Amino acid sequence: MVNNVNIGIIGLGTVGSSVIKILRKNAKDIALKNGFRINIKKASDVRDKRSIAGAAFTKNAYDVINDPEISIVVECVGGVDPAKKYILKAIKNGKHIVTSNKELIAKHGKEIFDLAKKQGVYVMYEASVCGGIPIIQALRESLAANKILEVSGIVNGTTNYILTKMTNNGMSFNEALKQAQQKGFAESDPKMDIDGSDAAYKAAILAYTSGGSFVKISDIYKEGISKIAPEDIEYAKEIGYVIKLLAIIKIFDREIEVRVHPTLLEARHPLAKVSDNFNAVFVKTDAMGEGMFYGQGAGGMPTASAVLSDVIEIAKGISGCCASEPFYPPAKKLKVRDIKEITSRYYIRLEAPDRPGVLAGISGVFSKKKISIQEVVQRGSKGLPAGRQGRNAQIVIILHENKEKDVQDALKVISKLPVVKKISSVIRVGIAN
Amino acid sequence: MVNNVNIGIIGLGTVGSSVIKILRKNAKDIALKNGFRINIKKASDVRDKRSIAGAAFTKNAYDVINDPEISIVVECVGGVDPAKKYILKAIKNGKHIVTSNKELIAKHGKEIFDLAKKQGVYVMYEASVCGGIPIIQALRESLAANKILEVSGIVNGTTNYILTKMTNNGMSFNEALKQAQQKGFAESDPKMDIDGSDAAYKAAILAYTSGGSFVKISDIYKEGISKIAPEDIEYAKEIGYVIKLLAIIKIFDREIEVRVHPTLLEARHPLAKVSDNFNAVFVKTDAMGEGMFYGQGAGGMPTASAVLSDVIEIAKGISGCCASEPFYPPAKKLKVRDIKEITSRYYIRLEAPDRPGVLAGISGVFSKKKISIQEVVQRGSKGLPAGRQGRNAQIVIILHENKEKDVQDALKVISKLPVVKKISSVIRVGIAN
Repeated sequence: MVNNVNIGIIGLGTVGSSVIKILRKNAKDIALKNGFRINIKKASDVRDKRSIAGAAFTKNAYDVINDPEISIVVECVGGVDPAKKYILKAIKNGKHIVTSNKELIAKHGKEIFDLAKKQGVYVMYEASVCGGIPIIQALRESLAANKILEVSGIVNGTTNYILTKMTNNGMSFNEALKQAQQKGFAESDPKMDIDGSDAAYKAAILAYTSGGSFVKISDIYKEGISKIAPEDIEYAKEIGYVIKLLAIIKIFDREIEVRVHPTLLEARHPLAKVSDNFNAVFVKTDAMGEGMFYGQGAGGMPTASAVLSDVIEIAKGISGCCASEPFYPPAKKLKVRDIKEITSRYYIRLEAPDRPGVLAGISGVFSKKKISIQEVVQRGSKGLPAGRQGRNAQIVIILHENKEKDVQDALKVISKLPVVKKISSVIRVGIAN
Repeated sequence: MVNNVNIGIIGLGTVGSSVIKILRKNAKDIALKNGFRINIKKASDVRDKRSIAGAAFTKNAYDVINDPEISIVVECVGGVDPAKKYILKAIKNGKHIVTSNKELIAKHGKEIFDLAKKQGVYVMYEASVCGGIPIIQALRESLAANKILEVSGIVNGTTNYILTKMTNNGMSFNEALKQAQQKGFAESDPKMDIDGSDAAYKAAILAYTSGGSFVKISDIYKEGISKIAPEDIEYAKEIGYVIKLLAIIKIFDREIEVRVHPTLLEARHPLAKVSDNFNAVFVKTDAMGEGMFYGQGAGGMPTASAVLSDVIEIAKGISGCCASEPFYPPAKKLKVRDIKEITSRYYIRLEAPDRPGVLAGISGVFSKKKISIQEVVQRGSKGLPAGRQGRNAQIVIILHENKEKDVQDALKVISKLPVVKKISSVIRVGIAN
């Protein structure tokens, strides 16, 4: 009564080997719940992983790709080369694809989906964004009847861990990074996480999934967290905010905003409470309203759980009386809005001499540009290096919602005011327009 | 190129009319994204709802149920009678069913699914639990490869609103209930929400969906929030907890726990931060680990969004070259664990004379029953009615994890101690074993 669905796995690192582990443990339950058995026909890795894959092991990925009995190829290699080559060949061979490869889908999604459409096969990528959080399925299926307006997420566990430690334990960026590395939450080379690159890949995939539009990685505005100072976190806390690295996608009729940057979030925002290495994605739509999906964004088991949800969904489609053809909607062409054209509130921290008239000078510039100030916090020499204490003050200004370009123009003028020593930080505040 | 999928709607209250509203607004987008158009062929209500449904309107539900051109019947009537009759007849007519009816699925799910299995049709019920939160899809599909260990949720918006107001604004239960009614978050007769009945229906559905076992409503232990006193909330806050009404499901090999009761949650638990009328469901599995799904648990538009996600999923299955047969796994028979057999931590608030030796007497009873105390807070006459201040003390005791039966037995003895005036509250603490 129970069909077998044969799958092949390419890449037996953390994710690939966890897929095997889960299938071994839960095979019987999966068969009972779905009516078919998932059978690992072949599993490849360039390293010897016989101990993990047993008799299914092969060193040659093409043994998987060219096996006529395999219907679904699971790609857990990561990176563009050779993963892209493997996937394209497997699609040409009529295989359905499940991938956990964010870089590949973010950079070459269009080419891959176009070929898959031509070949009538599924390409699924739940595991490529936020590991164990089923955000792709939520956006595509649970919200299928909704107009998605905004998707904003904490999509990188490393930076969230660092910012959490800076916020809750008063650590500096470097101390927190070091601890993240010790705990295995950050790579020895953490550049891609810290500078927002990893989050930008995920933003591109979320933008496609929620807005139907492919976005070039180079069109995504990106700012990392390495410049966030303990003072910024402290001032933010004082006025009721926390600082989070967010991927923000906003979808309009003809345009889309896709950006990654630190953001001051009101402490009561659901994302503000997501701490340590957890991820969460907040979604706003016309019908469902506001929702949030929270969980482990990385790790072998959570990511493999996502891989297998895709495998099972495809298997459901192909284990019936005849395969139901996957449907690929025509891609939309939304223009990516330039960061200068967005509107936002802003947090600005300045260093200036501790004497009267300074604030008048600064606010004069804003006023001339018709930029209104929401809140000002001025402190003696708090947080300044020892040598400069007593002479300079820290001024923190929160601006009402304004166009980024106008704010940047004003800041250029302000930076040249003789009373301003330094513009220390400029951080966007909030998500909503 | 684009197929039409004909649906019929029975019941045009808040949810049914919102389904129409969303379809009118987003029909073009839904067709573009999915490759088929959803057409409301007929829509019925006992009241005249022509203004909402237009030409599709009929007063007779059987016009929907017996229409040979309708493939999917959406039931938004609510309650058991006549909704059950309608659904059974529609299934017999070969219609697929989408329902938002929690009471019906909770009480008669087995009968309905059994008939649907026989007839080879889908019955989907995403909208029956937590409105806009796609928790059913998450449990069934996203977590299809996981062994689900625990599902615990804030599944009733009314009680969460009341507890939030008691916690954040220091209101009494009655004040908070009154405000909830004024804001439309509570019915004029709020009994079903307050006493946990509504949450118990949802717990039954979550238990079936995550554990594969049908649970009788009468087997679900249920405790409402009307006895929660402002003092309990204050003491909880003091020791780092918040009080939430939770539906808790724990799945074991042969048993299942399904219970609804107020719970002291550690302030850092993701569910602790879910406030106002929002709902959230926390899930623990062997592979994904911990995840949480958060959103609006009620309201026309969020619930209709869930209804339509089910409609679209069925339509995908039946709009292809041939219908893929739905698969109903065989139901498991897990024994519902008696509340006396569960283990939990406990919060106990007692009133006792303000004199030495009282605590020794109480802790002696616990010690004799080998129940260990985690924490004790003793306060003069704080929170006591004016007349009794100065003579009595409040003692709050947190117990380590123990079997409920042993704790109840000890409390029976303690309640008879001459030094104990009154056991004011007993509330379970935490979720995890």
